Amino acid sequence: MESLTWYNPTKILFGKDSIEKIGTEIKNAGLKKVLILFGSGSAKKTGVYDRVKKSLSDAGIADVEVWGVQPNPLVSKVREAIGIAKDAKNGVEGILAVGGGSVIDSGKAIAFGVKYSGDIWEIYDDPKKSPSKGLPLFSVLTLSATASEFNSGSVLSNPEKKKKVPMFFANPVASAIDPTVQFKLPWRQVMCGAVDSLSHLMEQYFSLPNETISTRQINLALQKSVIETAKKIKKNNEDYEARANFVWAVSLALNGLPTFGLSGDWNVHYIEHAISAYNDKIAHAEGLAVISLAYYPILFKKGITHGQFEEWALTVFDTKSVPDAINKLRDLYIELEAPLTLEDLKLNAKDIDAIADIESLNKESGIPVSKLWKLSKDEVKEVLKAALKK
Amino acid sequence: MESLTWYNPTKILFGKDSIEKIGTEIKNAGLKKVLILFGSGSAKKTGVYDRVKKSLSDAGIADVEVWGVQPNPLVSKVREAIGIAKDAKNGVEGILAVGGGSVIDSGKAIAFGVKYSGDIWEIYDDPKKSPSKGLPLFSVLTLSATASEFNSGSVLSNPEKKKKVPMFFANPVASAIDPTVQFKLPWRQVMCGAVDSLSHLMEQYFSLPNETISTRQINLALQKSVIETAKKIKKNNEDYEARANFVWAVSLALNGLPTFGLSGDWNVHYIEHAISAYNDKIAHAEGLAVISLAYYPILFKKGITHGQFEEWALTVFDTKSVPDAINKLRDLYIELEAPLTLEDLKLNAKDIDAIADIESLNKESGIPVSKLWKLSKDEVKEVLKAALKK
Repeated sequence: MESLTWYNPTKILFGKDSIEKIGTEIKNAGLKKVLILFGSGSAKKTGVYDRVKKSLSDAGIADVEVWGVQPNPLVSKVREAIGIAKDAKNGVEGILAVGGGSVIDSGKAIAFGVKYSGDIWEIYDDPKKSPSKGLPLFSVLTLSATASEFNSGSVLSNPEKKKKVPMFFANPVASAIDPTVQFKLPWRQVMCGAVDSLSHLMEQYFSLPNETISTRQINLALQKSVIETAKKIKKNNEDYEARANFVWAVSLALNGLPTFGLSGDWNVHYIEHAISAYNDKIAHAEGLAVISLAYYPILFKKGITHGQFEEWALTVFDTKSVPDAINKLRDLYIELEAPLTLEDLKLNAKDIDAIADIESLNKESGIPVSKLWKLSKDEVKEVLKAALKK
Repeated sequence: MESLTWYNPTKILFGKDSIEKIGTEIKNAGLKKVLILFGSGSAKKTGVYDRVKKSLSDAGIADVEVWGVQPNPLVSKVREAIGIAKDAKNGVEGILAVGGGSVIDSGKAIAFGVKYSGDIWEIYDDPKKSPSKGLPLFSVLTLSATASEFNSGSVLSNPEKKKKVPMFFANPVASAIDPTVQFKLPWRQVMCGAVDSLSHLMEQYFSLPNETISTRQINLALQKSVIETAKKIKKNNEDYEARANFVWAVSLALNGLPTFGLSGDWNVHYIEHAISAYNDKIAHAEGLAVISLAYYPILFKKGITHGQFEEWALTVFDTKSVPDAINKLRDLYIELEAPLTLEDLKLNAKDIDAIADIESLNKESGIPVSKLWKLSKDEVKEVLKAALKK
C-alpha cells in the first residue's frame, strides 16, 4: 500500500423512494435547469421518466431532454448533447443522466465537454486536455453493471476511428438508485450486469503478491454477494432484498474500494475488447464470461499468483481445490445463462488470428497493461484457443 | 434495505508521504489560516509536528496552535479552542486536527462551534441546534481506532454533567493517513484500536435478520483483516504492509460501509459506557473486550440472530461451531493482551449493581437502543455477572 488517494464524494440516494429525491438534490446544489439524458425509451415504459419529471418540477427545476444514447455509447450522441447544452438560450447548468452505464458515461462526457472549446474526442485521445471541472452531473440508475453512478469513468466509442476508449472525469454529485425499477429488466441484461461486475472484481482481485489484504477480502466479499444475489434474482426477479443487495454490491464493485492498493490484472478485459471490436454484436459481458473461463485456469497454472487462487476458491466457492472453484464458476455461468465458449458466441478457429491482430492494435485502447502478466500475441492466441469449445 | 443515504466525501491521503500533502489540500480549499489542534505532545516526539508545520508553511498556510486534547476529550478544551478560533484577530478559516479520535472528534465540535452563537454543549444536548455547516475540517491521523478521520461522529465528555455524548457533524474534507507514524505506539494503544474497531464491526454485524447481506459480508471481511493484521503488528510493529492494512481496515470499520442497511445492535457499547462512567480509569476498548466475551455467548443462546453467528464463526474464525468461535475470540484477546473479565479490570461482584444503576441513567447517552434485543436492567446484570471471572 504505497501512496494512494481515496476520494469518492458521490451521494447515493438508495431505496424505493430515491428517484423522488433527485429534484431536491439538484435544487440544493443551486441549479435551476438541467439537461436530462436518456437511452432508447425504456424510461417511459418503466415509469422512471414520469417520476424524474415530477421530482424536477416539484423542486422547480426546468429541463431540456436528449434521447437516444445506445449501448456502447457513441461520441456522436455526446457531441449532439454538448451542442444543446452549450447553446446559451437553453440555460443548462447541470446534467441529469437517467439510465445505465452508457447513459451515465455519456453524461460525464457532456458535463466536461460543455466546458471544453474543442471537440470532446480530443480529450479521449489526450486526457491532459480535459478541463479540471465540468458541469455538475446527477444520475438516476436504471441498470446495474458498470458502477458509473459511483465512479468517474466514461467509455465512449468512436466508430470512425474504430476506437473504444476509457476516460476519467468526475463522479456524479448524487445518484438515485431505486432497485425496484430493475424488476422488469430482461434476464439477459441482469446476467450481463452480474458477469460484468464479477469480472471487474476478479480483474481487480488477481494482482501482484503481497498487496493489500484488506482490499482483497472486501473484494471477495463482494464477489460472494454478487453471486448469491444474482442467483436469487434468477429465481424471483421481484425479490426486493436480493435485488437491492445485488444493486448495491454491483455499485461497490467498481467504485474504487475493491481495488484500493491492488495493481489488478485486466487481461480478460484486454482480450475481450478485441472480441467485441471484431464483432460488435457480442455484448462485453458475454465476451468476459467466455474469456474468464479460458484465462483463469491458464493464469492459475502459470503459478504467479501466490495463494490468491486458493483464497478465492475457499472464500467465494467454499472449496480448497482451485480447479473445482473454476468448475463452479462455469456452473454459475451456466445457471446465469451466460455463454461459455467462443462457439457459443458464433466464433470459430479461423476467427482467432483476426481477433489476436485486433488485440495488438488495441494497445492504445486505454486498458492498462497487466502488471501481473504482460501477454504476448501468442499467449493471447493460447487463451482464445482454450476458449474455443468445451 | 429501505431508504438509505450513502455520503462519505472525505478525501483520504494514504501513505508514507501523505502528511506532506495536507498543506496543499488546505490551500486548494481556498484557506489561508487554520487552527491546529493537538493532543498531549506525542506529535512532537514522532516528528509529525515538524512535518505538518512544514507542509503548511510550504503551502503558505498560517496557523495558530492549540494543545492538550486528552483521551475521552472534554468539552472544556473544545470551548477554549472555539474561543481562539472565534477571535477575529486570529483569522482562523479552518481546523486541522492532528491526532487520534479524541483530537479529531474535538476538531469537529470546534469547526461547528465557531458557527454557533451559544455554548457548544447545547448542541450535544439538542442536535437540532447545530448549524448546518461548520468551518472546513482537515485531519492528520496518528492513532487508528475510531475512524473519526473518515466519518462525521464526535463524542465529547462533560464531567460537570457526568455525560459522554455522541454527535454527528460533518466529515473531514481530507485526512492524511501515514501508517509509519504508528510504528512506535505503545502496544496497549494498538490493542485498544484493534478491540475498539472489532467491537464496532461486531455491533454493526449482529442485526435484525434478513438485512443487507452484501454489507454483512463486507463487515466480516473487515473483521478478518483487523484480526490478521493486528496479530502481525504484535509480532513486528514496523511491518509496513500489516500496519497499512490494519490502519485502512480500521478506518473503514466505522465509515458507514460495514453498517449500510443494517440496524446493528450496540448493546456491548451500551453496557461498556456504564463501566467506564463508573471508573474512568478503564479504557473504552478494555471494557468492550470484557463485555463482548460475556455478551455474545448469551446473545447466541437467545437464538434471535438467525444464522448470523454461524456465518460469523465460519468466515472470521474458520469453524462451524459458534462456541468454538467465541473461544477463538477469547484466544485472540489473550494474544492481543486485552483484559478478559471484570476482575481483570479490578472490578468485583459488589460493583455490578452500581454499574447497572449507571446503565439506567445512561439511556440518554445517545447510544441507540438495540433493535435486536432491548436489555432490561436484570439482563444487564446477567451480562455483567457472566463477565465477572473466567
